[in-house]
Amino acid sequence: MPQVRVALAQTNPLVGDISVNLDRCFAAVADAAAAGAKLVLFGEMVATGYPIEDLAHRESFVRSAEDAVADFARRLDDAGFGAIATVIGHPSMAQQANGWAIAHNTASVLLGGKVIGSYAKHHLPNYGVFDEHRNFLPGNELLTFEHQGLRFSVVICEDIWQAGGPVAQIGQTGTDVTLVLNGSPFEIDKDDRRLALVRQIAKTHGTAVAYCNLVGGQDDLVFDGDSLVIDAAGEVKARGLQFAEDLLLLNFDETGGVEVVSEPSVTRADDDWQVWNALVLGLRDYVNKNGFKSVILGMSGGIDSAVCAAIAADAIGADRVFGVSMPSKYSSGHSRSDADDSAERIGMHLRTESIEGYTAEFEAGLALEGLAAENLQARMRGVILMALSNKEGHLVLTTGNKTELAVGYSTIYGDSVGGYAPLKDVEKTLVWRLARWRNAYAAQNGLTPPIPENSISKPPSAELRPDQVDQDSLPEYDVLDAILDAYVERRLSREEVIGLGFDSTTVDKVIGLVAIAEWKRRQGAVGPKITSMAYGRDRRMPITNRYR
Amino acid sequence: MPQVRVALAQTNPLVGDISVNLDRCFAAVADAAAAGAKLVLFGEMVATGYPIEDLAHRESFVRSAEDAVADFARRLDDAGFGAIATVIGHPSMAQQANGWAIAHNTASVLLGGKVIGSYAKHHLPNYGVFDEHRNFLPGNELLTFEHQGLRFSVVICEDIWQAGGPVAQIGQTGTDVTLVLNGSPFEIDKDDRRLALVRQIAKTHGTAVAYCNLVGGQDDLVFDGDSLVIDAAGEVKARGLQFAEDLLLLNFDETGGVEVVSEPSVTRADDDWQVWNALVLGLRDYVNKNGFKSVILGMSGGIDSAVCAAIAADAIGADRVFGVSMPSKYSSGHSRSDADDSAERIGMHLRTESIEGYTAEFEAGLALEGLAAENLQARMRGVILMALSNKEGHLVLTTGNKTELAVGYSTIYGDSVGGYAPLKDVEKTLVWRLARWRNAYAAQNGLTPPIPENSISKPPSAELRPDQVDQDSLPEYDVLDAILDAYVERRLSREEVIGLGFDSTTVDKVIGLVAIAEWKRRQGAVGPKITSMAYGRDRRMPITNRYR
Repeated sequence: MPQVRVALAQTNPLVGDISVNLDRCFAAVADAAAAGAKLVLFGEMVATGYPIEDLAHRESFVRSAEDAVADFARRLDDAGFGAIATVIGHPSMAQQANGWAIAHNTASVLLGGKVIGSYAKHHLPNYGVFDEHRNFLPGNELLTFEHQGLRFSVVICEDIWQAGGPVAQIGQTGTDVTLVLNGSPFEIDKDDRRLALVRQIAKTHGTAVAYCNLVGGQDDLVFDGDSLVIDAAGEVKARGLQFAEDLLLLNFDETGGVEVVSEPSVTRADDDWQVWNALVLGLRDYVNKNGFKSVILGMSGGIDSAVCAAIAADAIGADRVFGVSMPSKYSSGHSRSDADDSAERIGMHLRTESIEGYTAEFEAGLALEGLAAENLQARMRGVILMALSNKEGHLVLTTGNKTELAVGYSTIYGDSVGGYAPLKDVEKTLVWRLARWRNAYAAQNGLTPPIPENSISKPPSAELRPDQVDQDSLPEYDVLDAILDAYVERRLSREEVIGLGFDSTTVDKVIGLVAIAEWKRRQGAVGPKITSMAYGRDRRMPITNRYR
Repeated sequence: MPQVRVALAQTNPLVGDISVNLDRCFAAVADAAAAGAKLVLFGEMVATGYPIEDLAHRESFVRSAEDAVADFARRLDDAGFGAIATVIGHPSMAQQANGWAIAHNTASVLLGGKVIGSYAKHHLPNYGVFDEHRNFLPGNELLTFEHQGLRFSVVICEDIWQAGGPVAQIGQTGTDVTLVLNGSPFEIDKDDRRLALVRQIAKTHGTAVAYCNLVGGQDDLVFDGDSLVIDAAGEVKARGLQFAEDLLLLNFDETGGVEVVSEPSVTRADDDWQVWNALVLGLRDYVNKNGFKSVILGMSGGIDSAVCAAIAADAIGADRVFGVSMPSKYSSGHSRSDADDSAERIGMHLRTESIEGYTAEFEAGLALEGLAAENLQARMRGVILMALSNKEGHLVLTTGNKTELAVGYSTIYGDSVGGYAPLKDVEKTLVWRLARWRNAYAAQNGLTPPIPENSISKPPSAELRPDQVDQDSLPEYDVLDAILDAYVERRLSREEVIGLGFDSTTVDKVIGLVAIAEWKRRQGAVGPKITSMAYGRDRRMPITNRYR
């Protein structure tokens, strides 16, 4: 019975860096060849990285990707890998442009030094963070090919999420193995949805399925890997690492059976582990792919900056993390001691720059008081962080969380300054949960919990006036997060949210705050999406908008 | 021969303010009725304002718009306008959601107190600033109706821009008058393209065409009105005002003939007039629709702030415009005298706040020099403007132009602070041209030219170090704007841009600057789109991107 050894190469490409991406693919094919693989499957658009957004409208870019893939086929052949079928994702020029989009989202099969077939994605996602109707033209043909005695068919990502798509037709082609190239970003619980979907496809159409996902951070997206291999009976045979590159090796046969070649190391764990690792990978890749040597952030002694610092240290190492404690006359004693404690636990750099003198100068010069004086303090801190960034070259991290972003509880050009927002999609109650999880994880492994217990347990405060706490102006965070979940993520109406049992005054206040904070969100830093509704590309709302 | 008097009501709605928008529509119907009209045509989505973006995903919003339109029909009937066919744009719930979009972009015909028919837009633009595949489901049916002896058909905006759309079918329905509801934003030269298209449709299908556009600013878009009436022979019979509300009245007959009821006042003029008025309307509506009483901006004595101040004064009156001169030790004498001259010519408020003391404090405290010290000066100015905004309630205008935005020639959280950027889509060479045009226009009308001649003629400088001029770090602006036009707007490749005759070192520098400024652009204020490629929703590029 013919059996074909297939490798799923879960790699981490960088958008626009075509030659480096293909070098990495070359190394993966070499590894797979050494392990006896006859077919290598990569992720969606791995040659260019993904998503390329409006780079897809630039003819020179699309043509250079196509040329690079043709060169790559020759290079594989020259190196003795010509007999391996290599299935790789890239953009390609469409036959007919529609006046805006010019390209397909393509998967090509390379064999014997040539591109022997190409498949253009049929279903173009145009919701959430995706703009693929903007950027690509849809394909409408199937691609199946025989290789080493088995029949393979190729589809791309969204094609398997849409009923009546090419997958339904594949069942009639005698396909033994369906190859799926994916660029599927992490969301909490999405791994379970993917798994159920792929199992269903395998069982319905009677083919084994090799589902290869990208891995890595790209601006606000984190591709989590977690590639899957399912046999024709719907049984999971292998899963790729989450949040790391991987190479899965399996033997497929013509009965739809799958044999694991080497037991993969499995790192899958609970939701908190997944979220933490998504945040870590997102930050690491933003820093490294954009060429930063280090990050800098304000350390207030509060929970958000403590968690951001811990994520940063996990991502790039504590020696690349620089904290600045910036006390004012309203800062409590614990704000400094907790910041010190954070830095010591993590082993990061920490310095102190008091804002007192600067604040006093502006307050006097401009006769500021009340909200203007409160915002001023946050802006003095922003000026200091940006000055140190300009002087020393660090990327500034802004430490605000999703709940603050939702209701505008931040000072624009103050605590919001920065190029990357690690907690952008992490609501306040989840920040606390992650902090507890991370500390417990450290304790379980005999290591120092990185987050001071006091930062977790004390009442949150911006400390911009005497004895201020967040709950002076906001509902309790468990209530606030529940209202935001209902109103923003589930898009319930005001009446429906109140119907869940929340106080109508509170609901109206929250809805009003969400609306008037839109202009601030538009000017915010990018940060990693971990939910089904992240602020940013996922939720595009008008600024000028009277609807409440 | 039956003849029907039709009114085109070119109104300015506010997104989300359904009841106020419909009140305005009611007043327009009353005016039209008083003038003997039997049919009133409004713009696309006039009931909710346009574009509603992801409000389209909120079921409660869509249903409230539908209910409000049904109420509006009854209200018209109650007021004695039930015999007038009123054709109005609004969102409506689709029969079947696709998991993301739930609504149609709809036009309904109101008669006798009822909605007698609805049309769902067939062609959903999903390019440039538009995300309509994201936000709406397409329709596939025609709407034609008899009224007062003539046959009318209804289509919406993009439907007439796509060959093979519903317009081709309308020709076979015996339609006398095609009614087109539009939400078509201003771009330089777009008025000519619209006119040619509508004339072509009239001639090809042998129907008169009534094309009614919205007017008004909505975030980064400016709807310019300029509604059109074309007879079946393709002759222009009337055009609505540009950049103002209007009510056009015409008699249509069954031969496709059109008779003008009252000569409209025509304000159309050259491109510079159009651009200036687009900028004025965009600013006015952003300020007023968001409830600001006044604006504040830094007055450097340079051309950008002088032009912004003049636009603001034209938009909302000089008494609502507050300037701040913020000199440093590097400021030239003319920077203050030119700012004074600007303010005096315009009649706006101006105060002086030296940044010298603040800058010295931070420079000493943080040991800043070079670029860090230059950026610091811009950030001190940002802090002052934001503090005065917080204290006094002004909207901050950021005065940077499109060329600076393209190459990142600005300090983030410094001169970029603000909620609205009047020159966001105006390249530097056009800023100069507009300044000259505005001064000449004033002179022609016997008024004071608002922009100091010296601000126009002196070499541009950020004045962040001694004797600095922009051309220390940038190519001459005519060269720079030409390279940017080729590379960004026309999407030519590096090689193609060089092939136009530009120096390759300069081209590489510009391309590199455009790429690394993406993160700053993402955090920039909204501003009015006037070209076919504005930074913002028109051009969506990854931040993490190695392609040059």
